[in-house]
Amino acid sequence: MLAPVRGWSRAQSSPTIDAARLRRRLEQLSTHGRPPGGTFASGVSRVAYSVADITARAWILEEIKSANLAPRIDAAGNIYARWGGEPGRPPILFGSHIDSVPGGGNFDGDLGTLAALEVLHAVQAAKITTRHPLEMVLWAHEESTAFGKGTACSRIVAGDLQAGDLDQVWNGLRRADALRRIGGDPDRIETAVQRQGAWHGYLELHIEQGGTLHGANVPIGIVEGIVAIHRYDVVVDGLANHAGTTPMTGRQDALVAASRLVLAVPEIVRARQGGQVGTVGRFEVEPNSPNVIPGRVRLSVEFRDLAEATLRELGEAVKARATAIAADTGTRIAVDLATTNPAAPAHPGMQAAIGRAAGAAGLQTRRLPSGAGHDAQMIASLCPMGMIFVPSVRGISHSPLELTTWEDCARGAQVLLGAVLDVDSRDSV
Amino acid sequence: MLAPVRGWSRAQSSPTIDAARLRRRLEQLSTHGRPPGGTFASGVSRVAYSVADITARAWILEEIKSANLAPRIDAAGNIYARWGGEPGRPPILFGSHIDSVPGGGNFDGDLGTLAALEVLHAVQAAKITTRHPLEMVLWAHEESTAFGKGTACSRIVAGDLQAGDLDQVWNGLRRADALRRIGGDPDRIETAVQRQGAWHGYLELHIEQGGTLHGANVPIGIVEGIVAIHRYDVVVDGLANHAGTTPMTGRQDALVAASRLVLAVPEIVRARQGGQVGTVGRFEVEPNSPNVIPGRVRLSVEFRDLAEATLRELGEAVKARATAIAADTGTRIAVDLATTNPAAPAHPGMQAAIGRAAGAAGLQTRRLPSGAGHDAQMIASLCPMGMIFVPSVRGISHSPLELTTWEDCARGAQVLLGAVLDVDSRDSV
Repeated sequence: MLAPVRGWSRAQSSPTIDAARLRRRLEQLSTHGRPPGGTFASGVSRVAYSVADITARAWILEEIKSANLAPRIDAAGNIYARWGGEPGRPPILFGSHIDSVPGGGNFDGDLGTLAALEVLHAVQAAKITTRHPLEMVLWAHEESTAFGKGTACSRIVAGDLQAGDLDQVWNGLRRADALRRIGGDPDRIETAVQRQGAWHGYLELHIEQGGTLHGANVPIGIVEGIVAIHRYDVVVDGLANHAGTTPMTGRQDALVAASRLVLAVPEIVRARQGGQVGTVGRFEVEPNSPNVIPGRVRLSVEFRDLAEATLRELGEAVKARATAIAADTGTRIAVDLATTNPAAPAHPGMQAAIGRAAGAAGLQTRRLPSGAGHDAQMIASLCPMGMIFVPSVRGISHSPLELTTWEDCARGAQVLLGAVLDVDSRDSV
Repeated sequence: MLAPVRGWSRAQSSPTIDAARLRRRLEQLSTHGRPPGGTFASGVSRVAYSVADITARAWILEEIKSANLAPRIDAAGNIYARWGGEPGRPPILFGSHIDSVPGGGNFDGDLGTLAALEVLHAVQAAKITTRHPLEMVLWAHEESTAFGKGTACSRIVAGDLQAGDLDQVWNGLRRADALRRIGGDPDRIETAVQRQGAWHGYLELHIEQGGTLHGANVPIGIVEGIVAIHRYDVVVDGLANHAGTTPMTGRQDALVAASRLVLAVPEIVRARQGGQVGTVGRFEVEPNSPNVIPGRVRLSVEFRDLAEATLRELGEAVKARATAIAADTGTRIAVDLATTNPAAPAHPGMQAAIGRAAGAAGLQTRRLPSGAGHDAQMIASLCPMGMIFVPSVRGISHSPLELTTWEDCARGAQVLLGAVLDVDSRDSV
């Protein structure tokens, strides 16, 4: 058992996470989207709006109800469940997401979501009365697989929805219809938007996804801020032609041109000091037949850094390189900025609350930035935001090999609980 | 109108291709697999076993019947139709295919198939009695899109079918079931195999797909032989990881490694004298999400040349390069020889017959190799083989921009007719 939380002054009893129940729920959730014939170690493919996502959400709704809570789905498909609090006070919000990348792991999002439910369970079990209502949230569609757009539904809550966004089509699915699949209501989408100050504060527990905490053997990370992301859609147009009858000279091979651009990305990113990263993750070739010279490649280029100026410079460098490659290969290359996530600093008061909660649990902490985007990034514009990280073994994530020990999962949930109660005790974070 | 064929000694009347009917049929065939809302210029996607392939085959069966012929589908899905001839003599076979690559053109295969029907129509119209039965053929599944295997059904006729081949699965479709879709009979597949000498000779009219004839303004190409093809399946295994939290150093990015291999292929091919070509046409990234470092890439590498020794050397060079790239990028790269098509020389007697038929029609000729694989390559092992090429405008093929003028289509069909009758007049080609 973990040590009970100390330093929280108003506890009727010392609330404690049920580590076994948290583990059981993580294991149950992992069956939704598991590859056929796989085990927990096979990870999950639970892309937003997929059957696996839908069945997992249905399972969680039942779990929430079993905790004597009444879940609510907003027009953007996000699931909320609120408990207790004094009238007139804004709730404290905490949660995460459960959608995954294709071939993802069992902890990214899942841990923070189920830990949020565990917090409500623990508070109930300890018969605590909080000043602010406590509200858990499951953000829909956090990963950027679907529609090429991440943190999509917390983004709506933050008011960042452009005209036509819901008309986007992905794999033959209109985004408005995708929202309907998960119980959203695209015709009343504006009802999902929340005003500034809607919440007293927002906390999210998440696996680090990088290797800093695991490497340093520190159980709790206090996030200083979330990096900005600039994502480009690139289209390389060459000329599809017969692979057997077209001489090597004079080919306008879109794949050859795109491959040069792929190699340019790490070269550009590494050419400067700093922790910025750049990745080509999506890459699709047309017509994609062994005997046809590729005529078109569509690919994504994304850059991440805390400094947006760095991202702009990296983007300009890629555009310049694309122009040179196009001229050299007889292709046309269009580079368009598709999405931007702003950098989001974590609120100093929330960082302090997490620090106190970790201290009360006797857990060492380290401050670090988040290289991954999170829904917290969106909600930071509405209320004070804080994030708790727990170690990812070997820093592996977005992979079936993603792993956080059960002990670290429980520690993170315990610190989330402590931080929620700490924030509850203050009128101003 | 084209000039009537001269120099064929046994004509009851001068048989002539109906150029208008040939054009009408090519235009009708082009509607099967045309992109929605497209025109003739939009080309076709008529991948083997697709709905478009199936409806096109049904349409052709009706056209064959309308020419007073009784079509027959063999166990491999190939369509034959025979006319006339003296008892005991082997037929003269001629034809091509109608399946296409995704985003292909209106002439590749289509011309040779419909010209074959036109030959039978013209011979009937001229009330000619031939010594050998004349047999047109529509080879099923010529392009290598489906199951990654080209000239698949003429290959069966030539007896090249390995145990387990029909159990292959592609896009969830078992190859045996694919054959059933087009009227084949996988349970009796051995009945499709033909013995050597089954035909007196085989002739195929096809667009050149390269730019030699168009560039030289020569209407008829006499194919000297078909290049050999060696095709490799390559799997690059890296480590999928989060694009935001994984530092640039230490990444095992399968796409970066694969891109280096893509660039190595033309470099290796161009490093030696000769007309050999090498292409990466298929290229698939997993998990293919903008925020995930690619963990795996599957790609095809194919080489073509008349000399098989050259192909073996190119394959060894790619393997060596793959080993070096894998070591340098922390990935594993497996390079496996997946399919080989042998080089197939055209029979000198068939080349001579084509030359005489072109001469009789007053058409200039040029001898050239075929850089593309054709069903003729397979049938060359069973009987004397000859191929007639007509110009591809700008050498473009496997693309909606593929174009052969209507006049050149008719000229090619006329030379096919003349060559068939020339071969018919000889006991030995």
